[in-house]
Amino acid sequence: MLVECVPNFSEGKRPAVLQALLDAARRPRVRVLGLSADPDHNRAVMTLAGEGADVVEALFDAARTALQLIDLRVHEGSHPRMGAVDVVPFVPIDETPMAYCVQMAQELGGRLGSELGLPVYLYERAARSRDRVNLARVRQAQFEDLGAWMADARHRPDYGPASPHLTGGAVAVGARAPLIAFNAWLSTRDPHVAEQVARAVRGSSGGLVGVKALPMTTPSREEHPVQVSMNLVDYQKTSMPMALDLVRREAARYGAQVVRTEVVGFLPLEAVIESARYYLQLTDVTAEQIIERSFWTHRLGEEP
Amino acid sequence: MLVECVPNFSEGKRPAVLQALLDAARRPRVRVLGLSADPDHNRAVMTLAGEGADVVEALFDAARTALQLIDLRVHEGSHPRMGAVDVVPFVPIDETPMAYCVQMAQELGGRLGSELGLPVYLYERAARSRDRVNLARVRQAQFEDLGAWMADARHRPDYGPASPHLTGGAVAVGARAPLIAFNAWLSTRDPHVAEQVARAVRGSSGGLVGVKALPMTTPSREEHPVQVSMNLVDYQKTSMPMALDLVRREAARYGAQVVRTEVVGFLPLEAVIESARYYLQLTDVTAEQIIERSFWTHRLGEEP
Repeated sequence: MLVECVPNFSEGKRPAVLQALLDAARRPRVRVLGLSADPDHNRAVMTLAGEGADVVEALFDAARTALQLIDLRVHEGSHPRMGAVDVVPFVPIDETPMAYCVQMAQELGGRLGSELGLPVYLYERAARSRDRVNLARVRQAQFEDLGAWMADARHRPDYGPASPHLTGGAVAVGARAPLIAFNAWLSTRDPHVAEQVARAVRGSSGGLVGVKALPMTTPSREEHPVQVSMNLVDYQKTSMPMALDLVRREAARYGAQVVRTEVVGFLPLEAVIESARYYLQLTDVTAEQIIERSFWTHRLGEEP
Repeated sequence: MLVECVPNFSEGKRPAVLQALLDAARRPRVRVLGLSADPDHNRAVMTLAGEGADVVEALFDAARTALQLIDLRVHEGSHPRMGAVDVVPFVPIDETPMAYCVQMAQELGGRLGSELGLPVYLYERAARSRDRVNLARVRQAQFEDLGAWMADARHRPDYGPASPHLTGGAVAVGARAPLIAFNAWLSTRDPHVAEQVARAVRGSSGGLVGVKALPMTTPSREEHPVQVSMNLVDYQKTSMPMALDLVRREAARYGAQVVRTEVVGFLPLEAVIESARYYLQLTDVTAEQIIERSFWTHRLGEEP
């Protein structure tokens, strides 16, 4: 069963360290889909995909390398972080159940705790208590404050020692639905319109469940610099068509239209199929009907 | 490079023969996606996919088996046919160029002619003259009249002998774009509306290029039995959204709406992506962004 994994490492500057992390993760059955490093944040995000067990192996080796090469005592960057390997979410691909991703998070978490001596917090769908579902509540402390924060019995990790790793801090390992970064440019130059639309659309202010939205200005797009930047965190509940239709309606209140959209990064096949289903009234179409996919399944060794 | 192949055999009744054709085509690197046999037509359509060379091998063996087990001198069925293997279209999958499918048609055609003594006509995108582009013009003669028809010098085959195979007739081998069988049910019970809509939509009567359309009544769907049944023969020119939007507009002239659509059989990934692109204004989205697809490419042994 296939999973995606998107580990965040606290290193965004030293090319040799980034290369070592990549080398540690690489193996024949795991595909490295991307590595994006930000020197200001001093942080890198790697995207891997493969069978669960292979990805756990890749992550374990990359985490060990991170502990060897990253020392948070001398790490500076604008992004908050509590660990050398900071966050490790497992994400289902295709028809992989979420429960399998939770299991992979537990397997990796167990090994990071016992073999590398790293405190591990299970979060989001892998969380074992309600106060660990939200990643922001798990990562309250910066590395520098982690010892004091962990001393509180409520902050005992799910795996590993009850105090921080000397140089590597602690890590949050979890399971979550795929996230779609979906942006819509508006026909107006007024950032205030994007602000109003984003507020109407995002779940936290009364809009759609599973939608985060912020107004953005992208000066490099001279003609239409104003954008509503969305994260769809549960596209099976709130799809791209549902989010975009609300953006279009709200923008229309201010005489603005959507001129173009984009998806940044990856997109689950099911999200594209759901868009076709929605607009084409193609109620029963399934991924099995996509000829490339049937071939892909075959290549993984399944029998028809 | 992946191709789909959809050979038509003149056998729709004898299970042992159908099984023998399947057995001949099957091999580890070729996926048999389907076999549908029609006893009234006395004809079967097989769908295969795989690397071009593997699919050519599979087709060659299936054609040899067809010549061994099917004798057109005693074949009866309601579907016109000129050969035991009647038509063999190669269809690109994913980013495979059409020129590669033409090459596969030539390779298979050459072998069927020289090794099995079967006259071969290259058609559609593989055609070597304008009068062989349209399959209907290549298959003008039934098996029974084939000898006379082939005696005309204009009907000399592209490969193989200049007269029919004694029991197996002749075969049309070609390359074509994927075909999408796309049906739309209307909110009316009046078949006349579907007739009007189909006429407005299909290319042959002034509608959209690459769209064939017929009115159909499906009594099993009691609530909405009336359907516009379409074949999109070049979805990169005329997409599902373009065809459906015209169906919706034309139906509206008669106070009818589209209540539901379906795709029968397979669908290229690009057709689904194009639908998302069209309706979501997602101008630049590509197949590379679909996470499952990137993994699938990897499994085929390509390096990132």
